[in-house]
Amino acid sequence: MTAHSAIGAPPLVAHGGRLDAARRLFPDAPRPWIDLSTGVNPHAYPLPPLADEVFTRLPDDDAFAALDGAARKAYGAPAEADVVPGGGAQAFIQMLPRVFPAKRVAILGFTYAEHAACWAAMGAQVDRVETLDAFANADVGVIVTPNNPDGRVVGPQDILSAAAQMSQRGLLIVDESFMDFTPEASIARFAQNESLVVLRSFGKAYGLPGVRLGFALCSPARGAKLRAALGPWAVSGPALAIGARALADDAWRANAARACAGDAARLDALLTKARFQIVGGTTLFRLAARSHASRWFAHLAARGIWTRGFADRPDWLRFGLPPNESAWARLAAALESVDGG
Amino acid sequence: MTAHSAIGAPPLVAHGGRLDAARRLFPDAPRPWIDLSTGVNPHAYPLPPLADEVFTRLPDDDAFAALDGAARKAYGAPAEADVVPGGGAQAFIQMLPRVFPAKRVAILGFTYAEHAACWAAMGAQVDRVETLDAFANADVGVIVTPNNPDGRVVGPQDILSAAAQMSQRGLLIVDESFMDFTPEASIARFAQNESLVVLRSFGKAYGLPGVRLGFALCSPARGAKLRAALGPWAVSGPALAIGARALADDAWRANAARACAGDAARLDALLTKARFQIVGGTTLFRLAARSHASRWFAHLAARGIWTRGFADRPDWLRFGLPPNESAWARLAAALESVDGG
Repeated sequence: MTAHSAIGAPPLVAHGGRLDAARRLFPDAPRPWIDLSTGVNPHAYPLPPLADEVFTRLPDDDAFAALDGAARKAYGAPAEADVVPGGGAQAFIQMLPRVFPAKRVAILGFTYAEHAACWAAMGAQVDRVETLDAFANADVGVIVTPNNPDGRVVGPQDILSAAAQMSQRGLLIVDESFMDFTPEASIARFAQNESLVVLRSFGKAYGLPGVRLGFALCSPARGAKLRAALGPWAVSGPALAIGARALADDAWRANAARACAGDAARLDALLTKARFQIVGGTTLFRLAARSHASRWFAHLAARGIWTRGFADRPDWLRFGLPPNESAWARLAAALESVDGG
Repeated sequence: MTAHSAIGAPPLVAHGGRLDAARRLFPDAPRPWIDLSTGVNPHAYPLPPLADEVFTRLPDDDAFAALDGAARKAYGAPAEADVVPGGGAQAFIQMLPRVFPAKRVAILGFTYAEHAACWAAMGAQVDRVETLDAFANADVGVIVTPNNPDGRVVGPQDILSAAAQMSQRGLLIVDESFMDFTPEASIARFAQNESLVVLRSFGKAYGLPGVRLGFALCSPARGAKLRAALGPWAVSGPALAIGARALADDAWRANAARACAGDAARLDALLTKARFQIVGGTTLFRLAARSHASRWFAHLAARGIWTRGFADRPDWLRFGLPPNESAWARLAAALESVDGG
């Protein structure tokens, strides 16, 4: 894996969360590093005690059934849909082009780059389109909603209309990796639709990306193909135990949604005061614009604050939520200490 | 996933470790169940304390580098080889037919069924062959060594000769999932050979299959293709932390090899006394033959002892190592209490 691309200066990192890259590129930055480069909830679901058996035994059907029940309820997936667990939403982004090969893929807008990369790697022609109408000419459409990085939401009715316009064998992939705190906007309740595959990420809203857990919600026919491709035991024992417990905890999720919304508003205020313009985002990250954002990236990195820049969008920086008051104070001080820009 | 096939009576379970199936099929058996259906070391590597960060952060390059170093040394893979980590040897068995598609696949002897199943699912013609000479006509050859279930070992020189006989673009998959305690028989030191992909399983010898960790040892060119297919973060944070620590622990591995060898000899003695004939196996499981083995399977299951039968081999039962003295005593009593057979 490449730690960073050569495009632009300062170096841009292909994915968030790469503090190893931060440490190498800015060795003199004050510690500890504050990682604002991801859309991961900094207030993680409290880790339950894990029985030795989740490590010492192969996951069995009972463990998968418990996870299935919790995920199905948390996401609002109907009984008619399959809820396929895997090692993170990324595992499905990797596998979908192999299991449902296609020639023409349309991806809505500027978004998480792995969708385009994985389809292109399998030889598909990938086009970025700006409207859902353009999906009518594609074999596969991809919608990330809420979108990463700008937070754009595509409503369920618009998604269903777009799916209906596609050819009968067409597939619409709806990546809901950041949907947990806005369930009313989810298409999961229609996931049994033969034209849809809905992706969900466990790690982001629950603050546990190291667990590697995600889901594809889809028709039983598509689910059977995905399960056959992933094989047995595609999810670890710890992921099954933690996921089943966390996804069943409605009270925690409701509290986390409120807390993140509060933090997102606080972050907007801080960035606005520093003359950033808020472009959008979700309650797990904010996208902000200002001229020469790459200079701000370097300025913040030199102060041990790692954000996310975009090679194609030199005016954008994405900020995750600071994890504690010390981090809030360091971010505020770093934003105040700039004169240029 | 299907819990058991309809072939034969009593029901045969497609994989070991399915105690959920055991509980449903033999609800009146005394508890706790003794699981002898797998080849997993019952004396697991002691779980280290896991920092919260292994769950709350995405695995970064430093974590992958630590695992790489430990695995490379433990397996004896040369610097010229790539050591690709994934979610268990099974994850590679699933992925190899997709990444290196082939028409004609030869698999040596009666072995772990997932190899044939995964190649056949991708449309390959799969033949079971009894000698390595037959690999010359195949695009892909598969050797499980030591073999599951009979323990047959194919030496490194024979493997290299077989690889040399294959066409230039041919691929020889060497599944060393049960090789940890007999490193002298491993081909890992030749893993950079363009014709080889060597699979290693972490969970079996270390007794931690729920962690989901395995490796493909191969040339950098093949490794790049496998890494691209698996995508970033194909291994969880806990797997990285536990794997890096356990694989670096040479003393534990040496002790475990001795302990398992002792238990395997004790198991052979017990089975021989019960008039089973030892067919083979490894120090993590023993394959034993006796007429009407399926009756013994049921007899043992009714006493809460879960072994592994084979639909195509009605005289075979595979026994894992009993985990403690209570299990040894229950197994001895159950074997003594049979008159038929």
